[in-house]
Amino acid sequence: MHPSAQSPEAGPAGLVDHHCHGVVRRDLDRTGFELLLTEAGPLGPASGSVFDSQIGFAVRRWCAPLLDLEPHAAPDDYLARRAELGHAAVTARFLRAAGLSALCVDTGFEPEPLLSPRRLGEEAGAAAYEIVRLEHVAEQTAPGATAAGFADAVRARLAEHARTAVGFKSIAAYRHGLALAPERPSAAQVSAAAGRWLARESGRGDVDGRVPRLSDETLHRFLVWCAVDLALPVQFHVGYGDADVNLDRCDPLLLTPLLRAIEPTGVPVLLLHNYPFHRHAGFLAQVFSNVFLDVGLATHNLGRASRTLVAEALELAPFGKFLYSSDAFGLPELYYLGAALFRRALAAFLDAGVEDDAWSAADAARVARLIASQNAHRVYRLEPQRLAAR
Amino acid sequence: MHPSAQSPEAGPAGLVDHHCHGVVRRDLDRTGFELLLTEAGPLGPASGSVFDSQIGFAVRRWCAPLLDLEPHAAPDDYLARRAELGHAAVTARFLRAAGLSALCVDTGFEPEPLLSPRRLGEEAGAAAYEIVRLEHVAEQTAPGATAAGFADAVRARLAEHARTAVGFKSIAAYRHGLALAPERPSAAQVSAAAGRWLARESGRGDVDGRVPRLSDETLHRFLVWCAVDLALPVQFHVGYGDADVNLDRCDPLLLTPLLRAIEPTGVPVLLLHNYPFHRHAGFLAQVFSNVFLDVGLATHNLGRASRTLVAEALELAPFGKFLYSSDAFGLPELYYLGAALFRRALAAFLDAGVEDDAWSAADAARVARLIASQNAHRVYRLEPQRLAAR
Amino acid sequence: MHPSAQSPEAGPAGLVDHHCHGVVRRDLDRTGFELLLTEAGPLGPASGSVFDSQIGFAVRRWCAPLLDLEPHAAPDDYLARRAELGHAAVTARFLRAAGLSALCVDTGFEPEPLLSPRRLGEEAGAAAYEIVRLEHVAEQTAPGATAAGFADAVRARLAEHARTAVGFKSIAAYRHGLALAPERPSAAQVSAAAGRWLARESGRGDVDGRVPRLSDETLHRFLVWCAVDLALPVQFHVGYGDADVNLDRCDPLLLTPLLRAIEPTGVPVLLLHNYPFHRHAGFLAQVFSNVFLDVGLATHNLGRASRTLVAEALELAPFGKFLYSSDAFGLPELYYLGAALFRRALAAFLDAGVEDDAWSAADAARVARLIASQNAHRVYRLEPQRLAAR
Repeated sequence: MHPSAQSPEAGPAGLVDHHCHGVVRRDLDRTGFELLLTEAGPLGPASGSVFDSQIGFAVRRWCAPLLDLEPHAAPDDYLARRAELGHAAVTARFLRAAGLSALCVDTGFEPEPLLSPRRLGEEAGAAAYEIVRLEHVAEQTAPGATAAGFADAVRARLAEHARTAVGFKSIAAYRHGLALAPERPSAAQVSAAAGRWLARESGRGDVDGRVPRLSDETLHRFLVWCAVDLALPVQFHVGYGDADVNLDRCDPLLLTPLLRAIEPTGVPVLLLHNYPFHRHAGFLAQVFSNVFLDVGLATHNLGRASRTLVAEALELAPFGKFLYSSDAFGLPELYYLGAALFRRALAAFLDAGVEDDAWSAADAARVARLIASQNAHRVYRLEPQRLAAR
Repeated sequence: MHPSAQSPEAGPAGLVDHHCHGVVRRDLDRTGFELLLTEAGPLGPASGSVFDSQIGFAVRRWCAPLLDLEPHAAPDDYLARRAELGHAAVTARFLRAAGLSALCVDTGFEPEPLLSPRRLGEEAGAAAYEIVRLEHVAEQTAPGATAAGFADAVRARLAEHARTAVGFKSIAAYRHGLALAPERPSAAQVSAAAGRWLARESGRGDVDGRVPRLSDETLHRFLVWCAVDLALPVQFHVGYGDADVNLDRCDPLLLTPLLRAIEPTGVPVLLLHNYPFHRHAGFLAQVFSNVFLDVGLATHNLGRASRTLVAEALELAPFGKFLYSSDAFGLPELYYLGAALFRRALAAFLDAGVEDDAWSAADAARVARLIASQNAHRVYRLEPQRLAAR
Repeated sequence: MHPSAQSPEAGPAGLVDHHCHGVVRRDLDRTGFELLLTEAGPLGPASGSVFDSQIGFAVRRWCAPLLDLEPHAAPDDYLARRAELGHAAVTARFLRAAGLSALCVDTGFEPEPLLSPRRLGEEAGAAAYEIVRLEHVAEQTAPGATAAGFADAVRARLAEHARTAVGFKSIAAYRHGLALAPERPSAAQVSAAAGRWLARESGRGDVDGRVPRLSDETLHRFLVWCAVDLALPVQFHVGYGDADVNLDRCDPLLLTPLLRAIEPTGVPVLLLHNYPFHRHAGFLAQVFSNVFLDVGLATHNLGRASRTLVAEALELAPFGKFLYSSDAFGLPELYYLGAALFRRALAAFLDAGVEDDAWSAADAARVARLIASQNAHRVYRLEPQRLAAR
């Protein structure tokens, strides 16, 4: 590696990445790389280069040295060197350099074959755990299900997953938005909603091979309550995503009534990403005892500006409620870049307070450990018997 | 006091705290202290310590020296010393050290016996005035009132208060939200709304001793217009509050039509707290000649990060439209901490501009005086005959 | 000029101001000047001075030297010197000093006689182009139009404008808000909406000489699709404006479905102003290949704080998607002040990254050129044959 590569020793070591996905198992041309680099869809003639952005500059600064290049290497040089090494070697370098102690992998989005959680963990030298996507389980249950039998079938599958997974995840934000009613839906309501959904989706899977797509408010809510009943932490996609998301429906404040209803159960709720609503998420993390947050996905997309992001998220959020995630998907660079930028942003936040005597160096070090890994361990109860099997 | 305690001389002296509450008159154990420290409700097993947060670190840094401890004293040491001194001595120290010239006290929320405005003023060495909570007056009027007589009875009580109070306050944000129609409701509309409310609430007060709870849009609006007719400044709770608040309904932009309707009367409207919508409030303060704002409550909760908060609020808000408040409730620390952090944040904002020659030192000093006290004196016309009687 | 006047050489020269208006052609007293300085309406007794604000301090710092005064000159001295020079000389000084290479002038708002695009260009030493306001064209078409003929009449006028203008602009935000449905309205829908509007507006123009005011969702949407069909860039007013705007309806996220529908056409969409939703606009610019943004109007209103604004807008927005505009109207100071503050903010953003080695000096210089002018040239295809004729 180039001598300017950041060593994982800088900042809190052994980050727990509590929400990420898998790595693609193929070499990528420039278009393929750019499409996985940001949340943009296909590039148009007016788009300019994705490399000309905070994340593009961050890749050139922080990732290039891991491929033996000078910092700020030109995009073409970067991609050429990447192709030369091949995807397997590139993956190995970035995952190892991320300096992770554990990963929690959402296995519910796999548009192409990805590295499995266990293999990700091996490459990263970290313990790997699985997060189960609620809507994915429901969609897998749909074929052949009846309206009346749907709820029990889903519950049984989720209970099975709960034996090994460390958490569930809702993507209601992407489908209906986060304006979910707080009430646990009745059996009759779930059966009626399932009936409508199954009738609409029947045959579609047969025609184009795609799984039926769940986007019903009652069913999203039913799934969340199933997860709460199984007493595993529940992650919510919040805020920032790709062009499919209607971001105005993804403000975490829309979850307030549901969070209020879940709080008495004590089941942890984790608000993921949150940008540009990260201050809203910080408020919720302060006032609800079971609410946690991160700024994953936004951290690497904001590049150098991730310092402001972390500082703003920590305005109201108690330090015991803030976690690290990359939300990396596809590119191995993102596991490393997320971790490197997060370490820098957190260190900048903590050091600035020590610098002007707002808190002590000892407190800063303790908070770094909480946020880097201890909060995640407390929330997810990461134990050897829950390590991902595949 | 410890030598590192901040003296009130640092920054603009004689702050007017234009919105605060009373201090609890009892000693507090750790749970009692933590519950009053932030807007969080009861702590759960996953909560971690409230002390591990911006406000917790700020208490240890800035309040500990006032209790003769080293800065950054451990929470247990802080609470032990606090208990040793007793609540009366602690209250005396913090209120005096806040360096206030006047306080405007909202007397409409008193879940337990609190220090009265007059006593607060004595402890602080400051003039004390009263702010009357509109909904509290309406709720006091309800028992025995008729639908037809409600409006006149409320108006009479408010007119009585207007002889001594310096302002009114609406908590519509906490109940209905800030989406209030702009029109002055008709007599028939008020009487109908009062009838519905009184019918729903009748007996409740008898059963559990609680006052009936007003949350009707027409009645909130009626109260605001009563206050406007009495030509006293009207404060609105906006944004940040506790877990009871649905923050998405508390964006000050929702008040736009009502503010537009009130503007021709010239009656000052004061948007309180505002976080995380403080930029929205700054916009309203720029475009409406009678709108003012503060960042109370958020200032002490954000601790060191309150510098960013003040700077953002002052992006658009004219310097003649920004005021100081603590929104302190319960803990005497909060009167001091709010003032100390506000002084620091305002000084940082003004000094940075002088530093890079964006404005002159003389202008900075003049703006500091406007914001620290002159704006409040202009808005509230604070006069000796309005000093709080009790 | 005073030696402390900023020379246009500082920072990227030859800015393209891709959205501005005309300059008033008269001398101004203090009230007249203050009313044009910010987005505030008439000042009330409680308002304080508009000069006591970020923009007021910025005028005194940056504009005073252009009138041969010391930086931070007192407002009265500033206005006296301005009157002494006369509006024509003042206009000449500020427009020339702005250091522009091109201006795109929205000619659809002219409440009093303004300097024409061609004359603005002559004063600025810059190429001048015209932006045509969609609603203005529709309102000009209304008198005498029939419901059935309205669509074709508007289309014909817009096609005529498209021969010379470089872009269109929608002010739906000011009228209906940005919650526009994505679908292209049918001929029947447009004719029905036009019929309702024309019936409501008929006679009004006769009575008070005002043009009929369009504020119908279907018609705003129809106009946008007409512009898209003509394949010229479409500007949208977004966010920050005067007291007439309901800012909560001007969040650019409300445009998401419409942006998604326009994207396949490849027609550039430019989100103007955006404050305080500039992060939302940055997100849209990242995920939609044809979406661009600026922070005009806010830049000069925020004064020194415009540094934060530019930095936040560039968190997610690709550097190829960010443009400069002043949105200056009325006062010649605003063309200069917007440019001077933007140069400083962009330089601060880029220099800070070079300083901590987040990107190279060469990349910073390249990005400065993109944002200062190259992005605008690419989007608008500014060509000699499209220079403003009047």
